[in-house]
Amino acid sequence: MIPRYSRPEMVAIWSPETKFRIWYEIEAHACDAQADLGVIPRANADAVWKAKDVEFDVARIDEIEAVTKHDVIAFLTHLAEHVGSDDARFVHQGMTSSDVLDTCFNVQLVKATDILIEDMVKLLAALKRRAYEHKDTVRIGRSHGIHAEPTTMGLTFARFYAEMDRNLNRLKKARKEIATGAISGAVGTFANIDPAVEEHVCAKLGLEPEPISTQVIPRDRHAAFFAALGVVASSIENVSIEIRHMQRTEVLEAEEFFSKGQKGSSAMPHKRNPVLTENLTGLARLVRMAVVPAMENVALWHERDISHSSVERNIGPDTTITLDFALARLTMVIDKLVIYPDNMLANMNKFRGLVMSQRVLLALTQAGVSREDSYKLVQKNAMKVWEEGKDFKTELLGDADVLKALSAEEIEDKFDLGYHTKHVDTIFARVFGKD
Amino acid sequence: MIPRYSRPEMVAIWSPETKFRIWYEIEAHACDAQADLGVIPRANADAVWKAKDVEFDVARIDEIEAVTKHDVIAFLTHLAEHVGSDDARFVHQGMTSSDVLDTCFNVQLVKATDILIEDMVKLLAALKRRAYEHKDTVRIGRSHGIHAEPTTMGLTFARFYAEMDRNLNRLKKARKEIATGAISGAVGTFANIDPAVEEHVCAKLGLEPEPISTQVIPRDRHAAFFAALGVVASSIENVSIEIRHMQRTEVLEAEEFFSKGQKGSSAMPHKRNPVLTENLTGLARLVRMAVVPAMENVALWHERDISHSSVERNIGPDTTITLDFALARLTMVIDKLVIYPDNMLANMNKFRGLVMSQRVLLALTQAGVSREDSYKLVQKNAMKVWEEGKDFKTELLGDADVLKALSAEEIEDKFDLGYHTKHVDTIFARVFGKD
Amino acid sequence: MIPRYSRPEMVAIWSPETKFRIWYEIEAHACDAQADLGVIPRANADAVWKAKDVEFDVARIDEIEAVTKHDVIAFLTHLAEHVGSDDARFVHQGMTSSDVLDTCFNVQLVKATDILIEDMVKLLAALKRRAYEHKDTVRIGRSHGIHAEPTTMGLTFARFYAEMDRNLNRLKKARKEIATGAISGAVGTFANIDPAVEEHVCAKLGLEPEPISTQVIPRDRHAAFFAALGVVASSIENVSIEIRHMQRTEVLEAEEFFSKGQKGSSAMPHKRNPVLTENLTGLARLVRMAVVPAMENVALWHERDISHSSVERNIGPDTTITLDFALARLTMVIDKLVIYPDNMLANMNKFRGLVMSQRVLLALTQAGVSREDSYKLVQKNAMKVWEEGKDFKTELLGDADVLKALSAEEIEDKFDLGYHTKHVDTIFARVFGKD
Amino acid sequence: MIPRYSRPEMVAIWSPETKFRIWYEIEAHACDAQADLGVIPRANADAVWKAKDVEFDVARIDEIEAVTKHDVIAFLTHLAEHVGSDDARFVHQGMTSSDVLDTCFNVQLVKATDILIEDMVKLLAALKRRAYEHKDTVRIGRSHGIHAEPTTMGLTFARFYAEMDRNLNRLKKARKEIATGAISGAVGTFANIDPAVEEHVCAKLGLEPEPISTQVIPRDRHAAFFAALGVVASSIENVSIEIRHMQRTEVLEAEEFFSKGQKGSSAMPHKRNPVLTENLTGLARLVRMAVVPAMENVALWHERDISHSSVERNIGPDTTITLDFALARLTMVIDKLVIYPDNMLANMNKFRGLVMSQRVLLALTQAGVSREDSYKLVQKNAMKVWEEGKDFKTELLGDADVLKALSAEEIEDKFDLGYHTKHVDTIFARVFGKD
Repeated sequence: MIPRYSRPEMVAIWSPETKFRIWYEIEAHACDAQADLGVIPRANADAVWKAKDVEFDVARIDEIEAVTKHDVIAFLTHLAEHVGSDDARFVHQGMTSSDVLDTCFNVQLVKATDILIEDMVKLLAALKRRAYEHKDTVRIGRSHGIHAEPTTMGLTFARFYAEMDRNLNRLKKARKEIATGAISGAVGTFANIDPAVEEHVCAKLGLEPEPISTQVIPRDRHAAFFAALGVVASSIENVSIEIRHMQRTEVLEAEEFFSKGQKGSSAMPHKRNPVLTENLTGLARLVRMAVVPAMENVALWHERDISHSSVERNIGPDTTITLDFALARLTMVIDKLVIYPDNMLANMNKFRGLVMSQRVLLALTQAGVSREDSYKLVQKNAMKVWEEGKDFKTELLGDADVLKALSAEEIEDKFDLGYHTKHVDTIFARVFGKD
Repeated sequence: MIPRYSRPEMVAIWSPETKFRIWYEIEAHACDAQADLGVIPRANADAVWKAKDVEFDVARIDEIEAVTKHDVIAFLTHLAEHVGSDDARFVHQGMTSSDVLDTCFNVQLVKATDILIEDMVKLLAALKRRAYEHKDTVRIGRSHGIHAEPTTMGLTFARFYAEMDRNLNRLKKARKEIATGAISGAVGTFANIDPAVEEHVCAKLGLEPEPISTQVIPRDRHAAFFAALGVVASSIENVSIEIRHMQRTEVLEAEEFFSKGQKGSSAMPHKRNPVLTENLTGLARLVRMAVVPAMENVALWHERDISHSSVERNIGPDTTITLDFALARLTMVIDKLVIYPDNMLANMNKFRGLVMSQRVLLALTQAGVSREDSYKLVQKNAMKVWEEGKDFKTELLGDADVLKALSAEEIEDKFDLGYHTKHVDTIFARVFGKD
Repeated sequence: MIPRYSRPEMVAIWSPETKFRIWYEIEAHACDAQADLGVIPRANADAVWKAKDVEFDVARIDEIEAVTKHDVIAFLTHLAEHVGSDDARFVHQGMTSSDVLDTCFNVQLVKATDILIEDMVKLLAALKRRAYEHKDTVRIGRSHGIHAEPTTMGLTFARFYAEMDRNLNRLKKARKEIATGAISGAVGTFANIDPAVEEHVCAKLGLEPEPISTQVIPRDRHAAFFAALGVVASSIENVSIEIRHMQRTEVLEAEEFFSKGQKGSSAMPHKRNPVLTENLTGLARLVRMAVVPAMENVALWHERDISHSSVERNIGPDTTITLDFALARLTMVIDKLVIYPDNMLANMNKFRGLVMSQRVLLALTQAGVSREDSYKLVQKNAMKVWEEGKDFKTELLGDADVLKALSAEEIEDKFDLGYHTKHVDTIFARVFGKD
Repeated sequence: MIPRYSRPEMVAIWSPETKFRIWYEIEAHACDAQADLGVIPRANADAVWKAKDVEFDVARIDEIEAVTKHDVIAFLTHLAEHVGSDDARFVHQGMTSSDVLDTCFNVQLVKATDILIEDMVKLLAALKRRAYEHKDTVRIGRSHGIHAEPTTMGLTFARFYAEMDRNLNRLKKARKEIATGAISGAVGTFANIDPAVEEHVCAKLGLEPEPISTQVIPRDRHAAFFAALGVVASSIENVSIEIRHMQRTEVLEAEEFFSKGQKGSSAMPHKRNPVLTENLTGLARLVRMAVVPAMENVALWHERDISHSSVERNIGPDTTITLDFALARLTMVIDKLVIYPDNMLANMNKFRGLVMSQRVLLALTQAGVSREDSYKLVQKNAMKVWEEGKDFKTELLGDADVLKALSAEEIEDKFDLGYHTKHVDTIFARVFGKD
């Protein structure tokens, strides 16, 4: 985790305080279930809830762990200091450390995903707003970085909206993947604890009981989870690359918002760097790099080995914190993105109508001119534009051979931008639904 | 694609013949829709179906492409050779090559996924059968590669079943991700073709129309698709690693089936190598390696660049072919896996009852012995087992201090395997449903 | 391997014919060494060389393998068909299949690397030629995609030269990594064969004997090898991205060569797509994706497992074939790249001198104007350029406040491009050496 | 970075204090060079060295950065607070922030690599010591996890030594890759600063001047660097997997050292988990995951974009810190690894001599028995061992048909372990050199 690329709410999920709080809830709910089953006295279960409002003392727990060399035991010892060691003596009975650790990890991932889902909803709102704002702002569409046919800025935003909406669904599915808990003992047989305990604890924590676990929750779930984050990150890169292209000096169709106070802005007005989206491009790589190790974590030996643990200590916090930051940053970028419709038009006209050459070619053949002759006609005029800087429409209108096939009005018509935008509403309805 | 790791049905999906067949269907259905719209004459649309039963001549198309340098044009030229160039003159009207190429790629991925789903269903059947067969076959559960507590072989199979069942769902979702088509023109605006054509073609091909495309279908879909395959592959590795461990000489709890004729088997009966699951471990890496490039493919420039294309020419066929082969191979391995229950028992007893030491420890404390004293009692007897090769239960039964706290019957009880298997039916019901 | 992205010489290295040829050489040289040691009769060793000019019949070997289920045995059986089974009876004595397979794989990798090295030398020649050709062709340098300060096109080529020259060294080191052979038996102890055989065979094949092997050559070597190819591929992407940027419509400082005959070029002269460098961007991803599985291959179980084998059957040929193709394609692109110096100048002047604002700012402060005042002076004039389309130098020359600090001559001087190119020769000398 | 997997010396390299110290040195040395060139007054250059022993106040710099929004300016402002703003006014003249940042990053990587090299030297010492200690400790070699032929524990250590020795060389080469500095200005042209400054600063910092840079040092260097770390990590995984296998209950040929005080050890003496090597397996994945993003960082736009920066802020510290920790942990594991030679022998004899079956087979054929008959003879006796628990050698010695071909002495000889260890000294001499 890099502090400058993190936000407090997400960081808090991964704090020791939160972790111990979740451990506490798992243990307390488990005691309740054990009491219901008659395994432990009800009074002892009730007593554990005395610590309900306690903020656990991380330093103290660390101190105990330094002696016991075991994190869960250290926590339980500290808990007993609050509850009373006599009352606490049934806490954790029949359980295995992994029951607590794995269930807690999934609770943290669920909480993290809830934030990511909120982030995504905000990003969608920003994209939708900008899409409608620029629904009819014409710009040139490009394939291979080369001018192709006109499109609109609204379609660009709408396209990112649709992509991020798919990502919203992926996040929801990813949440489901890891919203399970397990309290099933050393090898998952429930030898020392009734499955009812698992069911109760999971219900209280908003998790599904893992249908079959070993000592651990199966890691294919986490692989699928981190893979989903990797896809989301790749989409962030996709949007970022578009903005970086739009901001480059020669294109200048948009700029990241630049606050008045930002140094150097007005003495070098051409030098406004798209540093936010460049940064997002890098952050996307960081989120994505967790995907392969998460997949390598799936193949644990027999009922578990602990090779996955160090990986998850890193990628659990790091990817969710980074992705949260990235989504929020991107939302801000989209929200404030400065759009230059005039430059869009100027770029489209950079080669004075040549982008319409294909439409003219088609019109000529449809008007009965042979394909070869149509091609030669277009070519002749296109080369004047390309090499001599003439205007394409003007040339066509002055070419007697062209006028034999197409009227001036028909030629004008081929340069009508409305031809290209006529289905924008249809597409918007597909993406955003009918309003 | 490596021939030895491929199966014909999946390979066929990626053949030029199949590709041209799909192109043909896209073009023919598009003509129908264009005729319905009145854009082209009905007779011409009908004429295209004359080629319905034609097997396109790949060599001939290649020959034409060598001249035209354009694959779609080469195909269309060849199609005209069958349909008649006059009748064929409206084929592809208003369309862009990518409309055909991208929609075809998704059709191929859908077909491939259908096979993968069938493969997975077969694997699930094999796992379920073996799970019930060995529901009560006791073996030692292991954490960290070290004996922990007893479990059953049936639980191991059930666990893999549950994991693969999740993978079945992931494959179904992955199929949905890429089951879209797009016929939307050079930059996705439908400038030259009505959205109704896309809708018609997609309906005929079993696809959803892509709500908003550019020149191409957005690649976040494919990233999610290949990520799902990567998770499936990781699960294959997981099962394979388990089998490789079970087959290693010192463990020998299972062996891959070894056909009688296989050379060397009986002169070196100890030397039966788990080569199939070792191979599957490697194949998993091959499938997984496609995940990152598929994610790198998401960020295309503007309305498209073609950097994704060479990647997909490789990973499209290679990952689906490899995964199909791997799933089928794993199914065969599971189906025929030779299980050695006697060796399982022998392994469990390798340290003459020591795996029960934790249960005895717990019983002593529950019988009122202090934790320190319980520990010392267990330790004393455990060390005799560990260092002198004694039997743990016998030692306990002969230890007067232990007998003060636990009766002989209670001690016997701690070594009862039924304690560990009592919830197997519950877990099976969770995994396989109530029968 | 995708045929369209492959070249015959590299493909040939990975053919069965080449493989069997190398196997033959290993076996024949091993026989010589065994005869020298007196382990087998000299006559038998000599007899093996009878097959020296034989082209092995792959179909026949496959036929035998279908029966024996063992590739090396099938080859040896076929070899005996040429040499005579009596003469051939000492072939392979004391050897293990892996001795042949692993040594052969490394021979193939060495041969492949020799081609890659040749490819790189050619690429370097092309880059050097273009660097000198455009040593003084001024273009704007860009950071963040935004105009910064002038540089030259020659420096761009020189920079790629320096990067590829490092890659040449990396390839040479990578070659060294895998230029080893091992003939050390089932677990690497030389129990059944004298180390002298390994030494002789390696010497003949141009390899170093692997100092210590198990059944296999250690795979950290191959991990390092494929990692080096991944770096080379990333540099190819780097050059390709530069060219794609230069060719985009709004920049148009260079174009991939477009043959006169290529369809559509002159009717749509603006629509020349950088498809070669886009393709190279994708190919780079394909080469890079082999790096992680090659690293996952390092941790084999004990003296070997065979999980690496399926991975290498794929990435051995695929990455070297793809990289060979990519290097050759890039060389061609560089060789024929069409450079537009006029457009470079036009781009640099897009904002009428604003790129010099920082230099003017510096000059003002050096002339004694306070930093705040200097900033205000530059800002005032810069905004006129940015917002009103004025020329920066003209504005400065007409600004009395500026003229108080700087003479007209000094102002002119700040716009002298020679200031930026004065060290080009120094840099060239660093990169290419003193001529 | 995860605190529990980090060591202070390496962490210190990545502290703000160290960073500012390096920045200071770069600036101060640059002033010296500028003074030598006559660009700035000597007195001012000298004055900068007044801050030589200052510990820069990170909080104060952060405070300034909060205002200036620029890290290098904040540092320079703080430096001026120490040096005096008048004396400091020529600091950084002609330089660009990246000159400082990139050169500093490489200094940090060099320092980090120096520690990694020291770590590796210690690991090599441990491996060498254990190799000689167990040079003749016989254990079974395994392919595919299945017993093959005898080898020695010393060879295992020697093999890891050789692998790590290659890694030492890779680290040294990796150090060279990134031991460069650049002070070349906004686009690398030295427009505002003489190349002599770069040369002087680099010489003082132990770096080579980057022959040609842009605004940044080319990132193929860093890609190669992190790839090398990925290879080292994979080797750590390799050694770790071996130890984890050796420690698994059924094998128990070695155990990670288990301190007397460690809880639970003696009450459950069978339950000593190889948690350190499991942890190392996970840490290897963490180091390896940096390789691909480092390669994705190579293709920066034009003279630089800043997408690499967030990636490097993470992987710079994280991979070096993790690898340092991992190397030290592995050294400790190797140093203290508890080896069980008796168990090695017991494992080898698990199938009562069957591992020698291949040698017997060979001996029979060499004694003139046909291959078919030899095979049947071995098979007959092998099956008695496999199925009836007999001893292989005993059976052979009692088989009249065998005795017709081989004398009792010859049979005995086939079971001589010396046959397998006769070349251990040769191999050791290859690995460690002649003593």
